[in-house]
Amino acid sequence: MARSYQHVSFLSDLGRSDEHVGVVHAVMADLASHVTVIDLTHDIAPYDNRAGSLALARAMPYLPDGIVLAAVDASGTRPAVAVEVAGGKGVFLAPDNGLIAAAVALAGGADRAVLLLPDGPTALASSGATLVVRDVLAAAAAHLCNGGSFDDLGPAVSIDDLLPGVVPIAREDGDGIIAEVVWVDRFGNAQLNVGPDDLAGWPGGVRLSFGDDVRHADLSVGFADLGAGVRLTLDSHGLYAIAIARHSAAAELGIGVGTEIRLEPATTEQQGVSSPVSLRDRRPSPPLQ
Amino acid sequence: MARSYQHVSFLSDLGRSDEHVGVVHAVMADLASHVTVIDLTHDIAPYDNRAGSLALARAMPYLPDGIVLAAVDASGTRPAVAVEVAGGKGVFLAPDNGLIAAAVALAGGADRAVLLLPDGPTALASSGATLVVRDVLAAAAAHLCNGGSFDDLGPAVSIDDLLPGVVPIAREDGDGIIAEVVWVDRFGNAQLNVGPDDLAGWPGGVRLSFGDDVRHADLSVGFADLGAGVRLTLDSHGLYAIAIARHSAAAELGIGVGTEIRLEPATTEQQGVSSPVSLRDRRPSPPLQ
Amino acid sequence: MARSYQHVSFLSDLGRSDEHVGVVHAVMADLASHVTVIDLTHDIAPYDNRAGSLALARAMPYLPDGIVLAAVDASGTRPAVAVEVAGGKGVFLAPDNGLIAAAVALAGGADRAVLLLPDGPTALASSGATLVVRDVLAAAAAHLCNGGSFDDLGPAVSIDDLLPGVVPIAREDGDGIIAEVVWVDRFGNAQLNVGPDDLAGWPGGVRLSFGDDVRHADLSVGFADLGAGVRLTLDSHGLYAIAIARHSAAAELGIGVGTEIRLEPATTEQQGVSSPVSLRDRRPSPPLQ
Repeated sequence: MARSYQHVSFLSDLGRSDEHVGVVHAVMADLASHVTVIDLTHDIAPYDNRAGSLALARAMPYLPDGIVLAAVDASGTRPAVAVEVAGGKGVFLAPDNGLIAAAVALAGGADRAVLLLPDGPTALASSGATLVVRDVLAAAAAHLCNGGSFDDLGPAVSIDDLLPGVVPIAREDGDGIIAEVVWVDRFGNAQLNVGPDDLAGWPGGVRLSFGDDVRHADLSVGFADLGAGVRLTLDSHGLYAIAIARHSAAAELGIGVGTEIRLEPATTEQQGVSSPVSLRDRRPSPPLQ
Repeated sequence: MARSYQHVSFLSDLGRSDEHVGVVHAVMADLASHVTVIDLTHDIAPYDNRAGSLALARAMPYLPDGIVLAAVDASGTRPAVAVEVAGGKGVFLAPDNGLIAAAVALAGGADRAVLLLPDGPTALASSGATLVVRDVLAAAAAHLCNGGSFDDLGPAVSIDDLLPGVVPIAREDGDGIIAEVVWVDRFGNAQLNVGPDDLAGWPGGVRLSFGDDVRHADLSVGFADLGAGVRLTLDSHGLYAIAIARHSAAAELGIGVGTEIRLEPATTEQQGVSSPVSLRDRRPSPPLQ
Repeated sequence: MARSYQHVSFLSDLGRSDEHVGVVHAVMADLASHVTVIDLTHDIAPYDNRAGSLALARAMPYLPDGIVLAAVDASGTRPAVAVEVAGGKGVFLAPDNGLIAAAVALAGGADRAVLLLPDGPTALASSGATLVVRDVLAAAAAHLCNGGSFDDLGPAVSIDDLLPGVVPIAREDGDGIIAEVVWVDRFGNAQLNVGPDDLAGWPGGVRLSFGDDVRHADLSVGFADLGAGVRLTLDSHGLYAIAIARHSAAAELGIGVGTEIRLEPATTEQQGVSSPVSLRDRRPSPPLQ
């Protein structure tokens, strides 16, 4: 017997200034009114699969069982798919463009998958072209939430044929590490693809090099007690972020998503020398896009 | 016996940076906690009834039965009204300023209407001036959702006295059509007030003229396979949109809402000549406001 | 016996471009799926406790019984607290940084309070640093909504030790009043910390002085019939706002949050002389931040 679902976690690049996100909520309310739709974010930059993939992976450990509807570049050339995970506790509905790869892996990997075709059995008719998020993905979500069968969604596709995600991996470089800014949050903290294991045995702080700039950063945990200067602080997702107390590190240092940062252990002389920062007298800028 | 309602679809020009939209949700939760409020969008530009009207009309086919609460320029000089449609399956609550005219027509037309007065029987008291969306519209929505009678909302008003909407209509011009950009979505696609019937028998593509610019556009359906150059593509609402693959057509071509576009059938020589576009090396700009 | 709660009213400085707000919704859905989360606004500027405090106080009269989750500067140096009000009808969960002081006062004052520690009995484990809004505040909200005891949240703290809020108070100055712009809404109306009692007996209008500018403003109620020129109008929260019909007063006059405005009764000669305003031919600008 097919199970039904109560929750749809929804992430997209649709923004909120158009009515598309609201229409997806309306379709769900109309077809499966018992469901709660959770808006993770809809402000992923248009077509930015990597940013969408990382946001979804960060949220993943907190999502309730149910459907994940992820729509970044959803009307592009890649087909839509449904991917079942965790013995059916969850189903991802998304374009097969790598967007959900990291999140599916965090959920234990794909059990099975089907194609969601524009003229598939559960798709809505459109008065014009197919709007994938509305006509294909939301309609499939309603079908599943109402207890409809996974197999009825469309033809099976091998989970080995699903497009993998592209996750930026830091790499060793002599006695240091070449990392990358993977996310700048609203407060201007610049998350790196580097965690505690990477910096084990670097008790004296870290020397950060990017562009022509070199900074010393002491290590911290969290954002409460950053002290003065630039810090490399363990953030709430288990990765290190470049941060400055109550200021936007991204704006102050001129870094953004994709900036390459070289990290190396600080030498003895550098330890405890806090990095001078000419803090501008203003509130943090919005994060670099 | 009056019916009760489960859903309130909500569109406004209130933005989300103030707390007004949240307060409407709070009022509904407080007075009619069984109701689901669906936010269509709140980013309609202040006072822009036409944009609000078009967004509401685009969403209309997907809304569940229930209340439509539409508040663009709601604290202006026009009174608030309640308009019943579809034999009571739906009720619009809005200022009588043309905002809901197109959507009401799509719902089959108005059955009856009443005035919603600031000191009406269902209105909330304010500690200062009346905030129409909160004190009049949300309060009336709660009344109806709880099974309150339509007639109790206020004095009847003739549906012939409701303000009509102003819908931009394309017009014939020699062998061509003068159309207008009516919407630019987040991806920069520029929707025209032109549908398939208008271009029937134009198989060779379309010559677009606007300002001093002339472009050839091939016809497409949807946004997945746009190919190179400028396309006139059937969008998911059954209208044609000027689009460029993975770029903002509005930004590239310098067009926005209200830009007049002349369309004429491409001549034989022009067929298949794709329009050169100097694509800038960047992500799509936000839509022109 | 502990009571359970159905509603969480949620205000923050987290924005919606990151997934944090969505993750709080997800945590609530996962741990207390019967709860409705009401988003008041998440666009409070980062760390701007005063703006958050005022928005929360404006919304307060309309919130349903239940939890208020307020997170502005929530990962700062101040500890998180739970504050019970109104004999348990409501509980505030927030950093103890003055953010909730005005709203708590509006709810009748604090009955009792406890500290919410990062490693407290209801806190969620993090894979990195504690994210207070997610791991502490949302987790405590779920505990209370499920009928968990207030006392179990953490160690008691004296309500006399809670940080008071800083509310800007207008002051008399000769025959006038020195007021301050405390809020600019999306439409550019500039709310002052002045109400009807302050201007009782000023029937001839008000002379506004700010910077090098002097304007005459007639008094109005609401925004529907502002007439020409600058008005001082009673807004929907019982305070006076500087407004211009269908234009942004803040943009036209170059004022914003924190601008000091001197008000004095207009002299006989000034009465009825409307202030000339060179209205720019454009839509209202977004409010000054």
